[in-house]
Amino acid sequence: MENHTITFLPHDRKIKVAEGENLIRAAMEAGVHVNASCGGEGVCGKCRVIIEQGEVEEGLSERLSPEDIEQGYRLACLATVRSDLVVRIPVESDVDASVLNLQASPRHTARIKGFDLNALKEQGLFIPPVEKKYLVLPEPTAQDNIADVTRLLHHLKMEHGEHRLVTDLNVMRTIPDLLREGNFKVTATIVRPVRKDGKNQIVHIEPGDTTDRNFAVAMDIGTTTIYGEVLDLHTGEVLSSYGDFNGQISYGEDVISRIVFSEKKDGLEILQKKVVETINKVLGKIISKAGISRNEITTITLAGNSTMTQLLLRINPTYIRRAPYVPASILYPPFPASEVGIDLAGHSIALVYPGVSSYVGGDIVAGVMGSGMYRTDKLTLFMDIGTNAEIVIGNKDWMACTACSAGPAFEGGGVTFGMRASKGAIEDFSIDPGTLEPMIMTIGNVRPKGICGSGLITIVARLFEIGVIDNRGKFDRTLSTDRIRKREDVWEYVLVRKDATQIDRDISINELDIDNLIRAKGAMYSGAQTLLEEVGLTINDIEEVILAGGFGSYIDLEKAMTIGLLPETDPERVTYLGNSSLLGAKMSSFTNRLRRDVGEVVKMMTNFELAETPSYMDHYMGALFLPHTNLSDFPRLKARLEATKRAK
Amino acid sequence: MENHTITFLPHDRKIKVAEGENLIRAAMEAGVHVNASCGGEGVCGKCRVIIEQGEVEEGLSERLSPEDIEQGYRLACLATVRSDLVVRIPVESDVDASVLNLQASPRHTARIKGFDLNALKEQGLFIPPVEKKYLVLPEPTAQDNIADVTRLLHHLKMEHGEHRLVTDLNVMRTIPDLLREGNFKVTATIVRPVRKDGKNQIVHIEPGDTTDRNFAVAMDIGTTTIYGEVLDLHTGEVLSSYGDFNGQISYGEDVISRIVFSEKKDGLEILQKKVVETINKVLGKIISKAGISRNEITTITLAGNSTMTQLLLRINPTYIRRAPYVPASILYPPFPASEVGIDLAGHSIALVYPGVSSYVGGDIVAGVMGSGMYRTDKLTLFMDIGTNAEIVIGNKDWMACTACSAGPAFEGGGVTFGMRASKGAIEDFSIDPGTLEPMIMTIGNVRPKGICGSGLITIVARLFEIGVIDNRGKFDRTLSTDRIRKREDVWEYVLVRKDATQIDRDISINELDIDNLIRAKGAMYSGAQTLLEEVGLTINDIEEVILAGGFGSYIDLEKAMTIGLLPETDPERVTYLGNSSLLGAKMSSFTNRLRRDVGEVVKMMTNFELAETPSYMDHYMGALFLPHTNLSDFPRLKARLEATKRAK
Repeated sequence: MENHTITFLPHDRKIKVAEGENLIRAAMEAGVHVNASCGGEGVCGKCRVIIEQGEVEEGLSERLSPEDIEQGYRLACLATVRSDLVVRIPVESDVDASVLNLQASPRHTARIKGFDLNALKEQGLFIPPVEKKYLVLPEPTAQDNIADVTRLLHHLKMEHGEHRLVTDLNVMRTIPDLLREGNFKVTATIVRPVRKDGKNQIVHIEPGDTTDRNFAVAMDIGTTTIYGEVLDLHTGEVLSSYGDFNGQISYGEDVISRIVFSEKKDGLEILQKKVVETINKVLGKIISKAGISRNEITTITLAGNSTMTQLLLRINPTYIRRAPYVPASILYPPFPASEVGIDLAGHSIALVYPGVSSYVGGDIVAGVMGSGMYRTDKLTLFMDIGTNAEIVIGNKDWMACTACSAGPAFEGGGVTFGMRASKGAIEDFSIDPGTLEPMIMTIGNVRPKGICGSGLITIVARLFEIGVIDNRGKFDRTLSTDRIRKREDVWEYVLVRKDATQIDRDISINELDIDNLIRAKGAMYSGAQTLLEEVGLTINDIEEVILAGGFGSYIDLEKAMTIGLLPETDPERVTYLGNSSLLGAKMSSFTNRLRRDVGEVVKMMTNFELAETPSYMDHYMGALFLPHTNLSDFPRLKARLEATKRAK
Repeated sequence: MENHTITFLPHDRKIKVAEGENLIRAAMEAGVHVNASCGGEGVCGKCRVIIEQGEVEEGLSERLSPEDIEQGYRLACLATVRSDLVVRIPVESDVDASVLNLQASPRHTARIKGFDLNALKEQGLFIPPVEKKYLVLPEPTAQDNIADVTRLLHHLKMEHGEHRLVTDLNVMRTIPDLLREGNFKVTATIVRPVRKDGKNQIVHIEPGDTTDRNFAVAMDIGTTTIYGEVLDLHTGEVLSSYGDFNGQISYGEDVISRIVFSEKKDGLEILQKKVVETINKVLGKIISKAGISRNEITTITLAGNSTMTQLLLRINPTYIRRAPYVPASILYPPFPASEVGIDLAGHSIALVYPGVSSYVGGDIVAGVMGSGMYRTDKLTLFMDIGTNAEIVIGNKDWMACTACSAGPAFEGGGVTFGMRASKGAIEDFSIDPGTLEPMIMTIGNVRPKGICGSGLITIVARLFEIGVIDNRGKFDRTLSTDRIRKREDVWEYVLVRKDATQIDRDISINELDIDNLIRAKGAMYSGAQTLLEEVGLTINDIEEVILAGGFGSYIDLEKAMTIGLLPETDPERVTYLGNSSLLGAKMSSFTNRLRRDVGEVVKMMTNFELAETPSYMDHYMGALFLPHTNLSDFPRLKARLEATKRAK
């Protein structure tokens, strides 16, 4: 796609954007503040800019007079970039030039660390856990009338070098008739063991050659959502994917409330049935989208947290929520998927991701495997940010992990105008250091309804950086703007006035909201800090940061470092994994090597219970500041804050 | 028990018998002929003997006059031995002394080769395939909150040296609650692998210490009958046993008719259900008799022929009866017994004896294992005599096997007055060489109803030895007795006149009956001969003979050698295994070593299809004589026949 260079004046800041980008988003991306409140609907009319060179499409509005239009004025939120541009931002307030440099740093989200099938193939690691072998058997004769199963095993050994083969009664029942139906030309489906000395299990026999029809399903069993993908084990392609809400949601939003429900009469059975219903719904969609037959799926790899895993397997999870927080198991054996009600053929094998502890489950292990951190020398910090946050630190030689309860702030919970990251959520924010007027971006470019987690981080980061709030999250009561006010005894900053919202109320952020965010980020940061300290390191030793979980992709990294959610590091060192649990499940589906390695990794991962680590509370108290009580750990931010002070 | 010595005059033949023995059975045992027809009911009054010294109880009858009684006459069939005796047999016909020596050789059945638990224990081989281990686990704490399954596995390893442990979802589901119910004191039930490098599978966890409650069931799944035993794996005792007719019997008497039925719609399902019904009935009886609880049974070992095995496992057996006679499998994996409908707890594991071919099945392999022939240097001939007869030849270094269809003669089928070995069947026979009058013994000492297989062998052997029939089984038409006659164009010998029978008809044996027996024994003998020839040996090389199957215990060995069913050998070298299939199943239940060895034995056993061995028909033709066309292979018999000739 064609790129265009936009030069924003008077700051003379340049940015390259793709053809067709929205102009106000380009400004936000460049860190250039333009007042804007309505999310891009053109109703507030505040985002007036002058196109001095180049062409934009649209950008016209009744809010602009014919003279304005003649002079090149456009509404940035309605304008689409079609060429290189020189755009002037009208300076409406009289601030001195140094303040102009206090604009937001360019938005910087993490690079996505994708799945690289070719690399797998090049390393000879494209070894699916389930393989198919085609066999042309000699027909039995009077001189050669060995048992059918013996014939099959013998030729698998002679022609395909297969050893340590076993099978079960169900397969044996089909063999005599199938061999004859297929004129002794058949395809055997073989499940590979994890360890070299394990057995190769024949799970299915089909007449004819079906070796090119070998499909797998990878599935992430999340507390909130379940995502699945159909994989072609022959070509390595992802054929289809789909996600849906976990049907257990009506029995509780988080794992604790699910466990509580499971303790009621028939509760466990109901939750098991519900999650399987969703799995089957997702399966139905992805099978249909992929255009394959249900019984061509030979394996389904499932990754979920410890509670989701135990609920799916109908294993009482009650001890997960009670001290000392003991999960039933770490490793689960392969089993026929149909055994737990998953609507796949009897020969389809379910492989469940192992976990580490009650709160560091298979989803995190899948992420660790998918991220490749278990193969690197670099000291890596892996964080899955959410209500329950998990932290893994280590590299190929050692790993330590822990989990902490961050509370729901990152998902918009416990915040006055908080909401999930959906249409109308404020996801990005800038503030004019002079006028203290905001620049608002919403998901879907519609009028705002509330604030999502990533928006909250950015808002707090910007308010802090220009000194609107102090390092304890309290507003500077001396600032002269009607946007900062006290309502019902709580100080707040008005982000959007009610006429520009969808909810007919002012949308604001108050000190309680900020306090919630500070406690959430403090839990994460101090969790990582405590874990590091337990292994004799400090946060400055981190060489790479990996973000997992749905939230990770949206975070503006600089802002996350500004509030002290992430340690300050070069954003280039931060990568985002997408749905890391699904990624790990997918990679295991493609290579049995990962399944072998995961056993070693799980053994290697040392779990720490923060509640049992006395220093955690000290670290937590130190992290209840923006960014932290030790500002010296954030040298770049420190420099910016000092510059801001000087500018004022 | 006290023994008494009986001296029979005028032959001066001595025999030791147990206190309380029936006098006519003692005579038969001694090879002393006494005319007798009524089986022991005293109605024919022919078995008059004179008690010259000592005491008998009873023996009185209306058939004896007061003078007879005064002189010491008693009816032998009604007399019970109570002291040492001198008994004179009145010689009623005027035969010369030399003929007196032509009496029957003493009855000689094979020694029973029992199960020797102590020997197993001494050899360190008392290693049941399922063991129980008691564990006192430390309760989880905040510092030690590893997963429940991990805790269990870890302590099994540390305290009991258990390695390579695996378990399944069903067990995992029970572990969290059970550990706490039992205050972390639990007993784990572990199924041992056959091979050292296999996995040890935890199949059950119970609260508390139940290590002394570990029971197994051994079961013989016969075409006709199903026998089961409850075994105490802790003490090695057999606690109870019971047998019943296989419920499949109404769908066909032999394996072929069962297979034919299985080919009909739902036939396989019906037969599977029927055999399981019988298994469950037998189980119910032996569990109740043993006074144990059903869920204390940890394993059930099943041995049956290939058809019975496939029907039980619901595997289509149709290819067993169609050339080239291919069974589905040789080895079957362990599986939960409840999976096929056996009424045992879900953790009870079924172990199915492997077979060799379609007609040398798990029952024969169990017999080979139970007999110990796979551990001896001696060249052994193992025969399971029945409608379908199986022959195994070899020793610890090699083994060859085959099966032949002998027809139903040994079980009383295809014989005019043939019947199963039950009450009223003529089971033993002697003939007075002079008068040609018979001496008849029946099962249960009641009036005769017919002839069972072992009776048939003895009758034919005696008739042949004294020259009533020739070596082609034809009667000597010149003999002057009304017992030999032609009826409906067929020559016959009248065994019992109708007034001494239960059936109000003369009971006889005719040339067609004899021909049937000759063909049955010819099939057996020539089968063994062909098999030996295929491995480069002759029948004279046989050092030991092992008889298996229900029939084997009843055979009079000398008579079986006389007709050429068995090769002529020292009867001391012949042993009888009892229910060899059950014996093998029992031994496997007690020692996993046998389960390991059986895999090697099955691999070592070379199967020969007689139909595919051209020399079989030649050998068979040669065996259609009494005892055989080559009389020189029977030197002792040859000498006796020559003596008989001279005596006449």
